[in-house]
Amino acid sequence: MDRVSMPLVPDPGDMTTRLQPTARTTLRRSKERAATERQALYDVLTDGMFCHLGVVVDGDPLVLPTAYGVDIDRGPDGTLYLHGSVAARSVVAAPRQAVCVTVTHADGLVLARSAFHHSVNYRSAVIFGVPRLVEDPDEKLHGLNRIVDHLVPGRSSATRPPNRKELAKTSVLALDLTEASVKTRSGPANDEEQDLDLPYWTGVIPLHVIAGEPENNPDCDLLVPAHVRSRANRLGAPS
Amino acid sequence: MDRVSMPLVPDPGDMTTRLQPTARTTLRRSKERAATERQALYDVLTDGMFCHLGVVVDGDPLVLPTAYGVDIDRGPDGTLYLHGSVAARSVVAAPRQAVCVTVTHADGLVLARSAFHHSVNYRSAVIFGVPRLVEDPDEKLHGLNRIVDHLVPGRSSATRPPNRKELAKTSVLALDLTEASVKTRSGPANDEEQDLDLPYWTGVIPLHVIAGEPENNPDCDLLVPAHVRSRANRLGAPS
Repeated sequence: MDRVSMPLVPDPGDMTTRLQPTARTTLRRSKERAATERQALYDVLTDGMFCHLGVVVDGDPLVLPTAYGVDIDRGPDGTLYLHGSVAARSVVAAPRQAVCVTVTHADGLVLARSAFHHSVNYRSAVIFGVPRLVEDPDEKLHGLNRIVDHLVPGRSSATRPPNRKELAKTSVLALDLTEASVKTRSGPANDEEQDLDLPYWTGVIPLHVIAGEPENNPDCDLLVPAHVRSRANRLGAPS
Repeated sequence: MDRVSMPLVPDPGDMTTRLQPTARTTLRRSKERAATERQALYDVLTDGMFCHLGVVVDGDPLVLPTAYGVDIDRGPDGTLYLHGSVAARSVVAAPRQAVCVTVTHADGLVLARSAFHHSVNYRSAVIFGVPRLVEDPDEKLHGLNRIVDHLVPGRSSATRPPNRKELAKTSVLALDLTEASVKTRSGPANDEEQDLDLPYWTGVIPLHVIAGEPENNPDCDLLVPAHVRSRANRLGAPS
């Protein structure tokens, strides 16, 4: 599958960035290039709001959307945090085996003159690894705070923190950001030379995720606080 | 993992719809209820622009974003089409084994008074099955048209269709929409009774995917056609 790509040949607009060469992410890089690539990974993770977590359950793939948090200063390459009910199937499976975490932004629909060269402008990160079950209480709370603050920066200090009972119900997983790849496509459609005179419109429909006006819960008459306003504004309207 | 849910206990705002009872999707339903549920599945697939495809490669999960198309009239429960390069790892793997296709819409960030009850409003569909490699040339072209028309309705008849060489490079997979579940969360945050007086703002930041103004390719001076305009307008601005 061509990573949101409609084009089925390598597209000049496509760019793949691989971190930490492994069987799945195979290119060797210079130290400088690796730093650039790591920043590209952090950028995709910072902009994303949730991920798709893949696990293998009884031999079959299971892909579920879930929230995540990031601490780029924890561990040699940074750490991704996931959480879930201690009873949930995918979390129970995850600490024993490899997972794949994918974060994708769709930036535009790319319409070529040929059906074959239709594509999507996007940025995506794919992270592989065997997550560690977080057992240290301080890191567990830290991981949960990172997840809440990823959705809305500053939020963890503007809520009641999890109590002991809630913490006991929750599993937190930590995944090293070591084996990862970043792939992006941007720019206009790329048609074959012989198709350039065809009478079909070609271009890009840009896509944006924006926030609407924050809506108070019916039982809350407080003013929308700065951290919430700021989160909504950061998503903002399309430029 | 709680399906984009920050809450780790069942949330009154959560609703799961399961189709075709199996080991993974276990509730039995009346015929009427099943029809309603099937419509919920089609609605999530119609609104989605791309999916996350999970496959197992060498025992490990691989999750990649990709485009898809739908034909609800093909087969007893409708058919989902995927495509990719004949050389791509995940497509080569897919016709021999089970896949999981997940489509997710994030509708809002749900901010509770307690960290534990933070959540996300969303709609998601998860489809399981072993896809069939489409070998019939007519169905192959049909599947590709469905994928192009899913991105922009009407687009397949406003482009050059794939030629023989392009078709030979492309694998098309068909997945029955038989074993699937739909899960949604909507509405305000749900806090514990004893937290209702805490002095923290609670509410929802709505999220919308919108289209910007279509951008012509630099070498295209045609007017934006109706089907492109209409696609952009359907995404539109938030209400």
